[in-house]
Amino acid sequence: MNDPEIKRRGLMLVLSSPSGAGKTTLSRLLLADDPNITMSVSATTRKPRPGEEEGVDYYFLSTEDFGLKVNRGEFLEHAKVFDNYYGTPRGPVEEALSDGRDVLFDIDWQGTQQLMESAEDDLVRVFILPPSGQELEMRLKKRAQDPPEVVASRMAKASDEISHYTDYDYIIVNEDVDMSLARLKSILTAERLKRKRQVGLSNFVRGLQQAL
Amino acid sequence: MNDPEIKRRGLMLVLSSPSGAGKTTLSRLLLADDPNITMSVSATTRKPRPGEEEGVDYYFLSTEDFGLKVNRGEFLEHAKVFDNYYGTPRGPVEEALSDGRDVLFDIDWQGTQQLMESAEDDLVRVFILPPSGQELEMRLKKRAQDPPEVVASRMAKASDEISHYTDYDYIIVNEDVDMSLARLKSILTAERLKRKRQVGLSNFVRGLQQAL
Repeated sequence: MNDPEIKRRGLMLVLSSPSGAGKTTLSRLLLADDPNITMSVSATTRKPRPGEEEGVDYYFLSTEDFGLKVNRGEFLEHAKVFDNYYGTPRGPVEEALSDGRDVLFDIDWQGTQQLMESAEDDLVRVFILPPSGQELEMRLKKRAQDPPEVVASRMAKASDEISHYTDYDYIIVNEDVDMSLARLKSILTAERLKRKRQVGLSNFVRGLQQAL
Repeated sequence: MNDPEIKRRGLMLVLSSPSGAGKTTLSRLLLADDPNITMSVSATTRKPRPGEEEGVDYYFLSTEDFGLKVNRGEFLEHAKVFDNYYGTPRGPVEEALSDGRDVLFDIDWQGTQQLMESAEDDLVRVFILPPSGQELEMRLKKRAQDPPEVVASRMAKASDEISHYTDYDYIIVNEDVDMSLARLKSILTAERLKRKRQVGLSNFVRGLQQAL
């Protein structure tokens, strides 16, 4: 990754997109490709589904415990979706970053805005756009055999989500998944080389100068 | 590079390093690899050497013309080195950037500071470090059969140059030239994907939303 003698702080890679733009596929490919980045595990108040594992798929919490943790500032971001709460526990993320490991977040623009308030310096925000409206419409229709009004509402939601691309650092137009993955990997490589993340640099440079 | 329908503004890639860290080799490899980036051509008041071409190696100016251009703000940065003036003419760089082409600058920290004042938003600053003081000493000694006091003064200068790494966005420790080139290319790919450089994005997004 970086040079062994230079300690690096991990980063938080946020991927957002309207549904149907290919974000889930890209996330999966990136995680499979790069052992130094792992998916953030959310906490939730919803009941575990069959096969879901505590600490792997979610941290499962009672509504009371979730509320206590919100009050103690233990979430980097949280939201209510229908009747359940979801949130990103601060502890495991902070531990990964201190350890030089990167964390991937698959969240929407509202979650991203909350992360900006709690962790701006560690954040790398990438927005995935579909190559065309026609393509997006096709993907949203292909996803499910839903009645036209459901597709229409999903498209209206996509249009609203797209308008928030202005909150992101990098934009990838996902025309070809291999090309998009390569671009995402370049963003990760570049961000790891940022001076501010190479926290061991001042020691390294002092060593260089002493040898001169 | 980017998607054909999205117009992009070019960027100014600044490479700085102490001499002996491998910057010149990296610049040459990058220019050979990527047709969308070209070396910035400086203006100078020194006389052309045999084989040097106007507009290719340098823009050759009289001291009077150089001074006039300085007064008119036509240089992005300039400096006096021994008895001659050197500077980066603003016009050709601005034309390249507007046209979506990137420009490479091989300048020191003082030139970089001047560029920060005149062109901060377009600037991507990369500092190349040697892998170790011993390695740098070896490279500086290998470069010429100079007397020990010349090598010593060159090393003192290198130590001073290194201290300015804190002014740069990205740091590459040049242990292996292929690895460093790959990292430099990732930085270029990532920076081209920055939202702020994709000036045609708002049109593209409007088109997406109209199709939904």
